[in-house]
Amino acid sequence: MIGRLNHVAIAVPDLERAAELYRGTLGARVSAPVDQPEHGVTVVFVELPNTKIELLHPLGDKSPIAGFLERNTSGGIHHICYEVDDIYAARDKLRSEGARVLGDGEPKIGAHGKPVLFLHPKDFCGTLIELEQA
Amino acid sequence: MIGRLNHVAIAVPDLERAAELYRGTLGARVSAPVDQPEHGVTVVFVELPNTKIELLHPLGDKSPIAGFLERNTSGGIHHICYEVDDIYAARDKLRSEGARVLGDGEPKIGAHGKPVLFLHPKDFCGTLIELEQA
Repeated sequence: MIGRLNHVAIAVPDLERAAELYRGTLGARVSAPVDQPEHGVTVVFVELPNTKIELLHPLGDKSPIAGFLERNTSGGIHHICYEVDDIYAARDKLRSEGARVLGDGEPKIGAHGKPVLFLHPKDFCGTLIELEQA
Repeated sequence: MIGRLNHVAIAVPDLERAAELYRGTLGARVSAPVDQPEHGVTVVFVELPNTKIELLHPLGDKSPIAGFLERNTSGGIHHICYEVDDIYAARDKLRSEGARVLGDGEPKIGAHGKPVLFLHPKDFCGTLIELEQA
C-alpha cells in the first residue's frame, strides 16, 4: 500500500537559522520560506535527490505544531509522509485493521494540494504518519 | 554536501509487531530481522521505492537505543541518515562551522558496512543525524 517516502517534516524554533543550517552547513538545496496559512505553518523545502525534508515553523495563533515545539524546544522530527495511490482505500483498510485515523477520517487537502490523512502515533510505533494521495 | 536520504530509523518496543504493522497493515516490503550485535540492535528493513525505513530494536545489554525506548515507550523516530561523498571532508566542514560531531570524531563502520558519523541533535534542530559515506 504505502509507496514513496514523500517527506520528513522537522519542526524548528527558528526557520531562518534552520534554513541556513541546511543550506550553508549541510550544503543542501533549500527553498525560500512559503507561508501556508491554511495549515498554520511556514515551510522551507530541502530538496534531496530522492525525497524532501520540510522545515516547519508555526504561523498564526492555532498552529498544529505549536504544542510540539513547546515540548521540544530545539525542534525535532514531527511526522513522516508516505504516498498512497488511493487515500480512501488506504483509510478503509487501516480502519478495518483497527488503526486510528485522526480527525473525522475525511481526507483534507494537504500542503501540496493533494488529499491527506494523519494516523495515530500510538498505533504506528510512536510515529505520526501522514498519508498523501500521490 | 548532503545527498540522498539513506534511511529513517524508528526505534520500536516490539519488533515483530512493528514488522507486521509495516508488512500487513501498511502493505510495504519488509525484510526478516537482522541481528547487528556490533551495533546493539536488531533491524528490520522496510524497502520503499525511494528510500528505506529501518525498524530498530535493542540487542544486548548496551544497546544505544535502550535509553531512547525508556523515554519513548511506544517507540519513535530515532535518527535520519543522509549520504555524503566524503565523510572526512564532511566532518571537517561541519567542525569548522562549529557543529558538534559525536564521539571522538573518527568515522566508524556503520550498519551497512560503510563509514558513518553522528551529529549532535542540539546543533541540528533537535534531530539526530547520521552521515554515511555513500
